[in-house]
Amino acid sequence: MSAPTPPSVILSTPQLAENIGACARVMANFGLSDLRLVNPRDGWPQERAWASASGADWPLNDAKVLERVEDAVADLQVVFATTARPRELQLPILTPREAAAELAKAGAEGLRTGLLFGGERAGLETADIALCQAVVTIPIDPRFRSLNLAQAVALNAYEWRMTQSTTPPPAFREGPPPADGATMLGLFEHLERELEEAGFFHPPEKKPSMVQNLRAALSKAQFSDQEARTFRGVITALSRGRGRVLEKLARQKAERGQ
Amino acid sequence: MSAPTPPSVILSTPQLAENIGACARVMANFGLSDLRLVNPRDGWPQERAWASASGADWPLNDAKVLERVEDAVADLQVVFATTARPRELQLPILTPREAAAELAKAGAEGLRTGLLFGGERAGLETADIALCQAVVTIPIDPRFRSLNLAQAVALNAYEWRMTQSTTPPPAFREGPPPADGATMLGLFEHLERELEEAGFFHPPEKKPSMVQNLRAALSKAQFSDQEARTFRGVITALSRGRGRVLEKLARQKAERGQ
Repeated sequence: MSAPTPPSVILSTPQLAENIGACARVMANFGLSDLRLVNPRDGWPQERAWASASGADWPLNDAKVLERVEDAVADLQVVFATTARPRELQLPILTPREAAAELAKAGAEGLRTGLLFGGERAGLETADIALCQAVVTIPIDPRFRSLNLAQAVALNAYEWRMTQSTTPPPAFREGPPPADGATMLGLFEHLERELEEAGFFHPPEKKPSMVQNLRAALSKAQFSDQEARTFRGVITALSRGRGRVLEKLARQKAERGQ
Repeated sequence: MSAPTPPSVILSTPQLAENIGACARVMANFGLSDLRLVNPRDGWPQERAWASASGADWPLNDAKVLERVEDAVADLQVVFATTARPRELQLPILTPREAAAELAKAGAEGLRTGLLFGGERAGLETADIALCQAVVTIPIDPRFRSLNLAQAVALNAYEWRMTQSTTPPPAFREGPPPADGATMLGLFEHLERELEEAGFFHPPEKKPSMVQNLRAALSKAQFSDQEARTFRGVITALSRGRGRVLEKLARQKAERGQ
C-alpha cells in the first residue's frame, strides 16, 4: 500500500513569522509538507520564517496564502480543528492520537485531509471550527494552557507519523467519500439564504451563532457529493413552492388589472 | 491511584536560553516540573529563558544546575536517553510512547525517573547515554532530522501525560447524546410530508428509495435533541412561507366570491 497523502496544515491568521517557520520545521520532521496560511498578520513571504525553519524550506516555498478559512479547506474532504473544546458547537472531540488515526484512515482511502490551527493570540473563530468535522483537543495541563503554535503542530504531526510507522489496515468507508469544503459551503450558503428569506434568523443578533450551529450539525453528517446535491434539491423544493405560488398570485393580480 | 511523580527533564549542555525556556513551557503544558541543566553553555540563570517560557516560570526557578550528567541522574532510578539510535551501545530502543509507558509504570511503583536530552549541536555523548537504561528514538523523517530541542521534550512530555489520562478518551461521547429513534422519525416524517407537498418525490415509484437515502444521510449526523428541534424549525421556516401565501390566495379568492 502506498503511503497516504499527509494532512495539510492550515494556520489561520498566524502572527509571528518565526512560528510559521517553526511549524514548517516540525512538518518536515514528520513528513508533512502542504502548508496553508490564512491572512498571516505580517504578510507573506517573511524572511524570518525561513530563518527559523532550519532548512525546512519546501513547506514555506510552496505555502499557499488565502483570505478565508473557507478557501483554505475548499479542496479538502476531512478537516479537524485543533483547539480547546468549543462550548458553542457540538462536534466530536478527539485526542491528537484519535485524530491521527482518523486522518490516516481517510488518507488511506485517498481523501484529502487537513488540520486547522488558530493564531497565537486569538485562536480559532467558532465560524471556522464549524467548517470542520471534528475538534482535536490536546490533553494539556489545565494549570498551564499556553501551548506554542509549533508545538501543537508538532504533536499532531508526530501522531500522524506514528500511524504510518505501523501500516494501518486499509480501511474502506461505507459508500462514497465526503464532499469537499467548497461543496459543503455551497450547501450551507444556499440553506442560509433561504432561511434568511423565510425570516428564520431572529433575533438578528443571534444569526451568527444559529448559522454556526446549523453548519456544525450538518458537517457531522459528512455528506457525499450526491447527498449534498440531494439536500440542495430539498432546500429548493421546500422553498420553491412558495415562489411558485407567489408567481401565480402575481399573475392573477395582473389578470385582474390590479 | 495517586498520580506518579512525572519524570525529571535533564538537558545536557543546552546552548540557547530561549530553548531552555521553551522546554520549561512544554514541561508545564504536560505537567512536568523538575528541570535539570548540565553545563548550560551561557551559564545560569539567563533572563531570555524566562522570557521565552511564557509564564512557565516554576521549572526555571527551581532548575538545578550540575556539572556532569552523572550528577544529574544521581538520584534517579530509571533514566532514558532521547537520541538517535546509538551504534556503539546495545541498549533497548524505545519509541516515545513505549518510553512513556515504562516511565509511568516505574513512577507508579514509586521510582524516580528522568529523560535525558542532548544539546542543540552536539547531542549526547555516548558516555552519557551509557548511564541510561534505554534509548528513546523519535520517529523522525530521515529526510529531515533537525528536531528542535523543545519539540523533543514536548513529544516525550505529551506521551507521558497521555499515560496519565485515567478517563477513557472523550471522542464521540462528548456533548449531548444523539436523539432517540422516535425523535428522528418525527423529523424524517415532517421533512417527507413537506417534500411530498412540494412535489419533490417524482417519479412516485422512486419515493421509497429517495426517503431511505434522505434518512440515511441525516442519520449520519447523529443529531442531538436540540439539533433535531432546530431542523424541525428549519423545515417549518422553509415551507411556512408557502402556507402563508396559500392562505392569502384562498382569502382573496373568497373575497372575490369565487
